[in-house]
Amino acid sequence: MASHVIRIIGLDPGLRRTGWGVIEAEGTRLSFVGCGTVLPPEDAPMGVRLAELHRGLIEVLGRFAPDEAAVEETFVNMNPSSTLKLGQARGVVLLAPAQSGLPVAEYAPTLVKKSVVGAGRAEKGQVRMMISVLLPKAQPETEDAADALAVAITHAHHRGAAALARLVR
Amino acid sequence: MASHVIRIIGLDPGLRRTGWGVIEAEGTRLSFVGCGTVLPPEDAPMGVRLAELHRGLIEVLGRFAPDEAAVEETFVNMNPSSTLKLGQARGVVLLAPAQSGLPVAEYAPTLVKKSVVGAGRAEKGQVRMMISVLLPKAQPETEDAADALAVAITHAHHRGAAALARLVR
Repeated sequence: MASHVIRIIGLDPGLRRTGWGVIEAEGTRLSFVGCGTVLPPEDAPMGVRLAELHRGLIEVLGRFAPDEAAVEETFVNMNPSSTLKLGQARGVVLLAPAQSGLPVAEYAPTLVKKSVVGAGRAEKGQVRMMISVLLPKAQPETEDAADALAVAITHAHHRGAAALARLVR
Repeated sequence: MASHVIRIIGLDPGLRRTGWGVIEAEGTRLSFVGCGTVLPPEDAPMGVRLAELHRGLIEVLGRFAPDEAAVEETFVNMNPSSTLKLGQARGVVLLAPAQSGLPVAEYAPTLVKKSVVGAGRAEKGQVRMMISVLLPKAQPETEDAADALAVAITHAHHRGAAALARLVR
C-alpha cells in the first residue's frame, strides 16, 4: 500500500532493562537501523530510575527520529508487586514517544512471536534466530533489544491493517 | 528539628484521576497551599493519556515549586490488568517530580491513615474530616485531592525520621 519509507521504533519495557530497536519499512521491505538497551541505575530511588529510563528513551528518539512506535504488551501472570513495578516502567516507555508526538501501538507477546516466527508459542531463541534472517545487519546484544526489533517488525506487518481499521470505524 | 519552611507536594496516583495537594511545614506547624486533581482524557490512546497526566503534573510542579514530593503506595490486591494500568500512571507520577530534581518518598496507605487519623484502618470519610481539622483552609473537591493532602501531611510527620535514618545508615 504505502511505498514511502516509515521508520519504526519497537520497545520492550522493563525497569532494569528496556530494549529498543529501530527499523525502516518500505512496503514489505524491512531494513535494520539500530538497536540497544536502556539500563537505568538499579540502586537509585524509584523516581530517579524512571527519570533515567525516560532520559535514555528521549535520547534514542532524538537520535533516530522514528515516525511511529510499537510497545510490547506485558505478561501479567506474575506477582502483583512485580506487575506494579513493570507497569511503572511501561508507563514511562509509553509516555516518551507519545510526548514526541508519535502514534504508539501495543502488541501482545503472542502476536509478536506469531508475526516473527510464525507461531504464538515460539521460544526466545527462535525469535532471535528469525531476527537474524529478517534483519541480517542487526546484531542485538541483548534479548531485550532482539525483542524490541521483533515488536517493530510486528508493527510493520500490522500497521496498514490498523490504519485501515481506524478509517473504517 | 528544621525550623525553616518546607513545601511538600503529596500525590495520589490514578490513570483517570491523580490527586495533588501542596502544604508547607514549619517544624510541626502545617499550612495549606493548594490542591486539585489532574484528569487526563479517558478516551485517548494510553500514550496520550499518560502524556496529558505528565503535562498536568509538570504544570502543577511549576506553579507551586515544592521542595519535596510524597506519593501514596498502591494497593495491589486487585486484578493484574488493573494493577498494570495503575502502575503505568504511577510511573508517570513518580517520574515528574524526580525530573524536577525533587526527592520522592513513598508511603503505604495504612501509614497515611495512621498519620492523619491515628488508625491504619480508617475510612475515607475520616481522612477527609481530619484534613479539615489539620488544614482548615483546605477544601478538597475530590477524594483524590484529600488523599494527596493526607500523603503530604504524612511526609511532613515522617521526613525528619527518614532523613535521620539516611544519616545513620
